[in-house]
Amino acid sequence: MKPQVSLAELPLRPELVGEEPYGAPQLDVPVRLNVNENPYPPSPAIIADMADAVAAAAAQIDRYPDREALGLRADLAGYLGHGLSAANLWAANGSNEVMTHLLGAFAGPGRTVLTFAPTYSMYPEYARNTHSEYVVVPRRDDFTVAADDALAAIAEHQPSVVIITTPNNPTGTTTPLAEIEKILAGTEAIVVVDEAYQEFARHPEQTALTLLPRFGNLVVSRTMSKAFALAGGRVGYLAAAPAIVDACRIVRLPYHLSAQTQALARVALAHATEMLAKVDELRATRDELLLRLPQLGVEVIDSDANFCLFGRFADRHDVWQRLLDRGVLVRETGPAGYLRVSVGTPAEMAQFYQALTDVIEEIR
Amino acid sequence: MKPQVSLAELPLRPELVGEEPYGAPQLDVPVRLNVNENPYPPSPAIIADMADAVAAAAAQIDRYPDREALGLRADLAGYLGHGLSAANLWAANGSNEVMTHLLGAFAGPGRTVLTFAPTYSMYPEYARNTHSEYVVVPRRDDFTVAADDALAAIAEHQPSVVIITTPNNPTGTTTPLAEIEKILAGTEAIVVVDEAYQEFARHPEQTALTLLPRFGNLVVSRTMSKAFALAGGRVGYLAAAPAIVDACRIVRLPYHLSAQTQALARVALAHATEMLAKVDELRATRDELLLRLPQLGVEVIDSDANFCLFGRFADRHDVWQRLLDRGVLVRETGPAGYLRVSVGTPAEMAQFYQALTDVIEEIR
Repeated sequence: MKPQVSLAELPLRPELVGEEPYGAPQLDVPVRLNVNENPYPPSPAIIADMADAVAAAAAQIDRYPDREALGLRADLAGYLGHGLSAANLWAANGSNEVMTHLLGAFAGPGRTVLTFAPTYSMYPEYARNTHSEYVVVPRRDDFTVAADDALAAIAEHQPSVVIITTPNNPTGTTTPLAEIEKILAGTEAIVVVDEAYQEFARHPEQTALTLLPRFGNLVVSRTMSKAFALAGGRVGYLAAAPAIVDACRIVRLPYHLSAQTQALARVALAHATEMLAKVDELRATRDELLLRLPQLGVEVIDSDANFCLFGRFADRHDVWQRLLDRGVLVRETGPAGYLRVSVGTPAEMAQFYQALTDVIEEIR
Repeated sequence: MKPQVSLAELPLRPELVGEEPYGAPQLDVPVRLNVNENPYPPSPAIIADMADAVAAAAAQIDRYPDREALGLRADLAGYLGHGLSAANLWAANGSNEVMTHLLGAFAGPGRTVLTFAPTYSMYPEYARNTHSEYVVVPRRDDFTVAADDALAAIAEHQPSVVIITTPNNPTGTTTPLAEIEKILAGTEAIVVVDEAYQEFARHPEQTALTLLPRFGNLVVSRTMSKAFALAGGRVGYLAAAPAIVDACRIVRLPYHLSAQTQALARVALAHATEMLAKVDELRATRDELLLRLPQLGVEVIDSDANFCLFGRFADRHDVWQRLLDRGVLVRETGPAGYLRVSVGTPAEMAQFYQALTDVIEEIR
């Protein structure tokens, strides 16, 4: 085949033709509030510990890493509590890979994954990559998942995996545990409760982890990207019955988690108290955001996460661009007319409020 | 579903039922020569540089990493030479993930991956995880791949991806470039030349990279695990036409390579000269191994890699166990009757020679 080949001349799978790589724009602007990052990096003391831990790992990096990541999984179990142990935990390179393992084991060709929209825009990518059918059921008007709707959809579509995102992305909405419990009681499908933003909720103790002792088909998905400010570190994890972890172990390719990632994540977990103190600050900043936005004359969806949806704008792309022109990057996502803003530092939020005030003035 | 669930009660995909997680035993013994690791860790100066680089990355690890890993890809291109640039390079968490991206883009359900046995035992796992058909064609008696055989098999099985491993694992055999060129000239399938061990070859300059300017369907796969002693760091990569890299970018989940992995790999590449000096030592130790084994009365397959197959034993598992009892771990793999030993330090090899001498004495 000729060297200057185009993608159209290669045997690309037909469903991928014309697809673009997924991802929000990575723009270098002063105020980045577009991908729900935690704006507080680790402290210098924690960074020093991370460097030491990685140096220790590097001294034997010629050897393959612990394939089972047992130290990290034990630390994650200790962080979560609820009587969990390493056998209940699985970790991978971001929730992306955790979900790929789950769908690889329990979904795939001829099987269906069911989610509740509007929700996280990566789920269809997971389904596409694992060749699973992807079915979307609408959430209620308040963006919660109702058990009756869910069970009716499960009866209709017979999914092998159901994903309930709470707090939900991009709406920030928490679905009551009682609804999740009713769904679990009514299905033998794998039910993944994606709690990526749980630490930011007003009641983080109201977690699906409390349901694990009763439901063997429940998976609680978490990430270190948000509460632990480790988006760059790429560590997602789940808690579930040991049999579900065993299924992930079958489909994972060996040595998926590098020695440096295991080392760095364990340092962050060892400093959980300090890392989570910043979550308290972010929760307060989020609560202020929920108050301030209506004062600026825009509607805001109540949020338990480190972001919120606001709007509605007749031309949201125009508002997005005008904010960007002022050095503030938010995300154009979610229901029509809304934009999503992540919770930044107080200084970043001040710039956001000023920019939004100016833009509203301009477009009035 | 009840909490104490077994895997048999969960909706595991049928083809995974009864499967075990892949991987060689990770045993803590004095002499580990079982997984083709490089026995020389980075020097203290390089480790210090790695720690500094990871500390710098950790200072902004609350932010997502460069999704395109452009710095790392440019460094890899610089290392390979041959006029390559970042647009020709793709990197991921080990060759495992690189191959998963390739098969996700170009193989998958209804498509076939063709390899030449005996060869690397991970390939069927990649095919299984991507739901690709997996077809194996025997190598010639000298363990090379013959173009005539390959083209006949391609005509018969119509694969979308062909994998040629050279130097081959577990035999160590190099397939002549002329054969690979003939195969490329006769197919429009994606041809992956897996050169994981190329740096250890007696003629590393005889690489499929030299064929890239002529064939748009050629992929050259490499890894930092072996020559760069970075098995724990998990960095695999490929060189190909930019359109093939674009296909990988479509199927990769975003932010697949952590900030710390990108940082650490770039430090190793910056010290390529020092890291590769150890490869020269390992090549010499390998050449000595090829001489010594026949002197001990065992057959050895000529090898261009950092390991070799030796045998043949009527009961290879028994020999494997007897070596392990003496603190020397080798791998029970490859054609019947053979064992595979990785090239270690001179001290490790001395222990291996002594143990093998004793075992041969015992079983005679």
